[in-house]
Amino acid sequence: MRPEIGSPVGSDVEQRIRGSFQRQGLMAHLGATISEVRHGLVTIRMPFRPELSQQHGYFHAGGTSAIADSAGGYAGFTLFPEDSSVLTVELKVNLLNPAQGDALEAVGKVVKAGKTLTICQLEVFADSAKGRSLVAIGQQTLICMAGRPDVPAEGRHGAR
Amino acid sequence: MRPEIGSPVGSDVEQRIRGSFQRQGLMAHLGATISEVRHGLVTIRMPFRPELSQQHGYFHAGGTSAIADSAGGYAGFTLFPEDSSVLTVELKVNLLNPAQGDALEAVGKVVKAGKTLTICQLEVFADSAKGRSLVAIGQQTLICMAGRPDVPAEGRHGAR
Amino acid sequence: MRPEIGSPVGSDVEQRIRGSFQRQGLMAHLGATISEVRHGLVTIRMPFRPELSQQHGYFHAGGTSAIADSAGGYAGFTLFPEDSSVLTVELKVNLLNPAQGDALEAVGKVVKAGKTLTICQLEVFADSAKGRSLVAIGQQTLICMAGRPDVPAEGRHGAR
Amino acid sequence: MRPEIGSPVGSDVEQRIRGSFQRQGLMAHLGATISEVRHGLVTIRMPFRPELSQQHGYFHAGGTSAIADSAGGYAGFTLFPEDSSVLTVELKVNLLNPAQGDALEAVGKVVKAGKTLTICQLEVFADSAKGRSLVAIGQQTLICMAGRPDVPAEGRHGAR
Repeated sequence: MRPEIGSPVGSDVEQRIRGSFQRQGLMAHLGATISEVRHGLVTIRMPFRPELSQQHGYFHAGGTSAIADSAGGYAGFTLFPEDSSVLTVELKVNLLNPAQGDALEAVGKVVKAGKTLTICQLEVFADSAKGRSLVAIGQQTLICMAGRPDVPAEGRHGAR
Repeated sequence: MRPEIGSPVGSDVEQRIRGSFQRQGLMAHLGATISEVRHGLVTIRMPFRPELSQQHGYFHAGGTSAIADSAGGYAGFTLFPEDSSVLTVELKVNLLNPAQGDALEAVGKVVKAGKTLTICQLEVFADSAKGRSLVAIGQQTLICMAGRPDVPAEGRHGAR
Repeated sequence: MRPEIGSPVGSDVEQRIRGSFQRQGLMAHLGATISEVRHGLVTIRMPFRPELSQQHGYFHAGGTSAIADSAGGYAGFTLFPEDSSVLTVELKVNLLNPAQGDALEAVGKVVKAGKTLTICQLEVFADSAKGRSLVAIGQQTLICMAGRPDVPAEGRHGAR
Repeated sequence: MRPEIGSPVGSDVEQRIRGSFQRQGLMAHLGATISEVRHGLVTIRMPFRPELSQQHGYFHAGGTSAIADSAGGYAGFTLFPEDSSVLTVELKVNLLNPAQGDALEAVGKVVKAGKTLTICQLEVFADSAKGRSLVAIGQQTLICMAGRPDVPAEGRHGAR
């Protein structure tokens, strides 16, 4: 039976998610960290830095999309079998407001968990002195690669 | 009259695009550079670095989406009036194959140029010793902010 | 000030929405009707008929998308000025489960209401003897055509 | 080995596609017909009728999306094994121009054919006395249901 979305995860799942997240070079490079891991629900936080900006000084949509993608991907991954890995099939993001503030927080939430495909809804909030505002919403399709443990590929071009 | 998509730009447009691109902190942080600027057609290149990886050592979909977003945004911006700026309204990316190789190249191309909204198609290729492969396709809606020159906001939270 | 999403509409707004809906030839042809009109929230119902099926006998994704599109479009339109009209800029739908049952119900809800662009979230449910299930989720961008009242174009090719 | 996209199909594939299309009640109800079947490339035509209109007398985006969805779905299906069926996972459409004219023509084309997932690009054109114009572009993800022949479900609620 599938655990309820939003229910607490055991330490094994938490470690599997955090271990995989730490292997995402991009997340460290963007200064993003996982805030919370629940069944089918993962939150990622990214404080503002000039290295994350677009031309007007706001957060670049690419960074917003990156943490939304990882939040959704790991939300799905909490529900996958142990010896599997997760890939994003497609991602769609609507940018509602300029992403402006001290930090962004992306929340990925599973809407439909399937054996092969899992669908997530994504929300990205900006936190500032003025409060919290919703800056982006998204939808994402994930695929479960069964029997392919989530480990770095040896000798993979790019992994070097 | 609108210039033909893919036709050469004058040095004024080229400077406007490259100047704005240089103000995108994220592009520099990702090691991305503009390869080519044509009317309604912009190409961005991003060599592989471990800082761009996801958990398996491939390029992270967030980086792929980020350069696709900037390529499309600047493709549209080449056709906008001088005293305007560009924002992404929404972005959708299908990830066709693991993004693996020495570098990614994102091509943004205007399909419909409107006074308010401009629609782009996006392609991202991976270049490796084995050749070039298409790793992602996308669609994007841009909005032209007329009368708002493309300059950093003073005192903007985040611009600091 | 903008009315709260989900709050009751006056009879003028209700009439404007229902009048426009009745001019949508496709909705009548699909047997779809408006169930509810609230500020930024519209529900459309479509009972099953063999004329709505895909090849396996389920509701065709095209019909599902059509009522989701109209529900979102009219949800946005409730918040638009009187002398304007609404057009869909783009629509994205994830089909979560086979759309099977006695009727589909599409709920369109405004997430961000802007002067030019309005963004909606869309949900489509299937009702059957077994209960209600979520069969599709979507996101949609609408544009407000200010100063263009919502009337049929005279002599328009297609309007004839 | 996979056939080249756009190459002619044998009569077995043509029959499989046209037979399945004829079981789509919605396509007949919309007056849509298949114009062409090639490997990974299917074209569907839909003449204008008032029953297909939105509130201004143009083609409704729902009808536009419906034929785009079927064109892409069958484009993918030409490449699937004989005892399989096809379902749409997700669909995204940008509406570039008012869909106005004597007929719409949707072209679905496979961009990536996979064992499980297939990705298509979609284009919809409007034909009128003035010529042909591109009115919509889309992207679509299909899933191949292996071992589930494309036949109507018996006793399925909805198939009755």
